[in-house]
Amino acid sequence: MPSEFALIDRYFRRPARHAVLGVGDDAAIVRPSPGCELVISTDMLVAGTHFFPDDDAEDLGWKALAVNVSDIAAMGAQPRWALLAVALPAASEAWLEKFARGLFACADAFGIDLIGGDTTRGPRNICITLFGEVPIGQALLRSGAHLYEDIWVSGMPGRAALGLAHLEGRVRLTEPALSVCLAALRRPQPRVALGLALRGLASAAIDVSDGLLADLGHLLSASSLAATLKLDLLPPAGIERDAYLAGGDDYELIFTAAPEHRAALQGLSERLALPLTRIGQTEAGPAGQLTILDADGRPVEVARRGFDHFA
Amino acid sequence: MPSEFALIDRYFRRPARHAVLGVGDDAAIVRPSPGCELVISTDMLVAGTHFFPDDDAEDLGWKALAVNVSDIAAMGAQPRWALLAVALPAASEAWLEKFARGLFACADAFGIDLIGGDTTRGPRNICITLFGEVPIGQALLRSGAHLYEDIWVSGMPGRAALGLAHLEGRVRLTEPALSVCLAALRRPQPRVALGLALRGLASAAIDVSDGLLADLGHLLSASSLAATLKLDLLPPAGIERDAYLAGGDDYELIFTAAPEHRAALQGLSERLALPLTRIGQTEAGPAGQLTILDADGRPVEVARRGFDHFA
Repeated sequence: MPSEFALIDRYFRRPARHAVLGVGDDAAIVRPSPGCELVISTDMLVAGTHFFPDDDAEDLGWKALAVNVSDIAAMGAQPRWALLAVALPAASEAWLEKFARGLFACADAFGIDLIGGDTTRGPRNICITLFGEVPIGQALLRSGAHLYEDIWVSGMPGRAALGLAHLEGRVRLTEPALSVCLAALRRPQPRVALGLALRGLASAAIDVSDGLLADLGHLLSASSLAATLKLDLLPPAGIERDAYLAGGDDYELIFTAAPEHRAALQGLSERLALPLTRIGQTEAGPAGQLTILDADGRPVEVARRGFDHFA
Repeated sequence: MPSEFALIDRYFRRPARHAVLGVGDDAAIVRPSPGCELVISTDMLVAGTHFFPDDDAEDLGWKALAVNVSDIAAMGAQPRWALLAVALPAASEAWLEKFARGLFACADAFGIDLIGGDTTRGPRNICITLFGEVPIGQALLRSGAHLYEDIWVSGMPGRAALGLAHLEGRVRLTEPALSVCLAALRRPQPRVALGLALRGLASAAIDVSDGLLADLGHLLSASSLAATLKLDLLPPAGIERDAYLAGGDDYELIFTAAPEHRAALQGLSERLALPLTRIGQTEAGPAGQLTILDADGRPVEVARRGFDHFA
């Protein structure tokens, strides 16, 4: 394997368009925009746990960055700068070349500069740190939800989990659903434009990485609220609903907003060509408690274990 | 092993003193000081490559952060915020508790807030991202050296390499040198106060992580300069000189400064109780070329292979 310096030069050194100093010194330098705060996220992906050595490296390059972009999007921030640290076994150059192509495809799609990093030898491990910017005080936190607000979900969570279940032989998808679900799994589209547009509309937000019920639970706990979901606003009973409620890895956004913003959010949905579905509302009650009501307003037992398949 | 959330809560969640939002949301938020740039460094340490699973975890916690602090110090910046991503095999709680103690000892010593991170299961891997602040335009780059400037080195590089050589049975140290060298290896002291004081005095700086000759070579290459070193300013011939010139892992600083700053730098050395040694000067010549002159000004062949022991 060529030296660290050679690898960085070959695959990761590109002119930084929006940084003062990119790859190549002791550290990188960036100049935050006046009046902005920095929003920072880091994720470590480990071979055998988060991906497999024979997974497509280009897809993995995309996804490794996209999962961090999603965290920044969920804060309502604009992604700006990324650092990549990667450990690789010897003789991984072909893999690295494909990985870099996928990574830069995602970086270009979201206007991100790769400003620094570290390469080393070891069991395959990818650690990305991403910085975004948001005007001071305008970040969307998990803890900002208020009582009797609407709970919204973007897109169709569950597709990535269905794609994975298909690959693992647990379900059998047919076209066109198969292609849609595999794309959701391999090339997740973080909701940056939505997150930016939600500033001033949403009171709290989180991205769906662990599953809708789990992540909504995190948001409600942080906001010290309970919530009810309406069964008739969810997909019909069956595998799609199970995946919708419990499947992770989609990187859609869950957010809360006051009812007065419904028309604005419908307009936003049309402008972004992205479904925004109102699935319930926040209520008083034990922090994080979720109740699902049927069309007649009666609580429905939706057994957690029904979702283990996708959790 | 407890869940990721439990581990983060137990070992890594402390009130962030200087961050808007610390551990626990989709991302952390910090507010950069007005008029400052951000200086950002990331390092990945892998078990088997950079440390061994039976290394003292508390020392490792210190060192994992300290090597990043050194990068920030070498830029003349004030370290501020850190993110930690760590992969661990199952059942590593005792290790993690010691690791966190060492990490926070270093964080406290240098006024750093741990604002976020990620824990996951996998082969032991530690990835730290650190960012510091520096007034706009005042960072010390590798590329800033000018012709006929002095080359300075802080402290006594080589001690960490001698300590390692002793542990590996390649040399035999006696007290008090043994304790000093083992401390340099296990608890390196990044030169933050020096880096800050060098703003406006030094023209370029780099930290000694690969060895003095190698890192000085990086600085000279980035500045498109050659240099001569004076043999009589170096330790006497022998193992100490070899370690001084080629031993890595000390995290001392190499920097260049105009001769008019000699008195100020001597005063700084006294104020910090830290030796600053003028070992040579920059010259015109092939970028990165280093010549070593004896007391009579004649070039000396200092065979690279003499240092392989420490490189």
